[in-house]
Amino acid sequence: MMSQPYDPDNIFAKILRDEIPSVRVYEDDHTIAIMDIMPWCDGHCLVLPKAPARNMLDVAPDSLAAVAETTRKLARAVVQAFGADGVTIQQNNEAAGNQVVFHLHVHVIPRHEGDRLNRSNTQMEDTARLQENAAKIKAALKK
Amino acid sequence: MMSQPYDPDNIFAKILRDEIPSVRVYEDDHTIAIMDIMPWCDGHCLVLPKAPARNMLDVAPDSLAAVAETTRKLARAVVQAFGADGVTIQQNNEAAGNQVVFHLHVHVIPRHEGDRLNRSNTQMEDTARLQENAAKIKAALKK
Repeated sequence: MMSQPYDPDNIFAKILRDEIPSVRVYEDDHTIAIMDIMPWCDGHCLVLPKAPARNMLDVAPDSLAAVAETTRKLARAVVQAFGADGVTIQQNNEAAGNQVVFHLHVHVIPRHEGDRLNRSNTQMEDTARLQENAAKIKAALKK
Repeated sequence: MMSQPYDPDNIFAKILRDEIPSVRVYEDDHTIAIMDIMPWCDGHCLVLPKAPARNMLDVAPDSLAAVAETTRKLARAVVQAFGADGVTIQQNNEAAGNQVVFHLHVHVIPRHEGDRLNRSNTQMEDTARLQENAAKIKAALKK
């Protein structure tokens, strides 16, 4: 497989440029975190680098390091925010690897004993619910 | 959930101390990568920090950054080595998040269009096959 080009009009690039809305939970110089709008469960959020990168196959090392550190912070925060028993971290590359939006992103998914993730969810979550969950994560990040 | 203690007798700690064998594909000052012995597909490998860490909830930032960089290298290598169309990166935290061995590890899984991962594989792979796949990854890492 050849490395694919970055499309600057992908939906996450538009979110980074504030051309379309998102529910943000975190931002620093190199990354943002937003709520997934088709969550597998309450608290499912995404970590994105600000720098353009299609996925793990073209990302710059420094940008990836920043993504990893934000992922670490969010993993701890969602456990606190949702009283979770665990966390699943997943990052998909290319369509064959289930990537849908072609700007690198890491899924941070709080887990509870015996839960059943809605992995094939295609329903948009209510914005009010996303904002409520985002508020919990933001509060946990401040601790 | 409270943070859980690190058990220095977990299987990956023993692998890091060479007390039990593994099929290694990569090593640097802070990380190693080994073949998963119950792979979901050919080429499924794992990235581990050398420093003790149960998972994402207690890992030190520097150690995680090193794991992320090795994961990036392995992701590119498995695509080359297996002519993959994509890669899945997954990292499980605590039993509720499907973690089985309690030393932080990142799954790097080459993907092909239309593949069906054997996610519930409990069969040990033949060592010869693991070594053959490891050789392909090591060759790709040198490119």
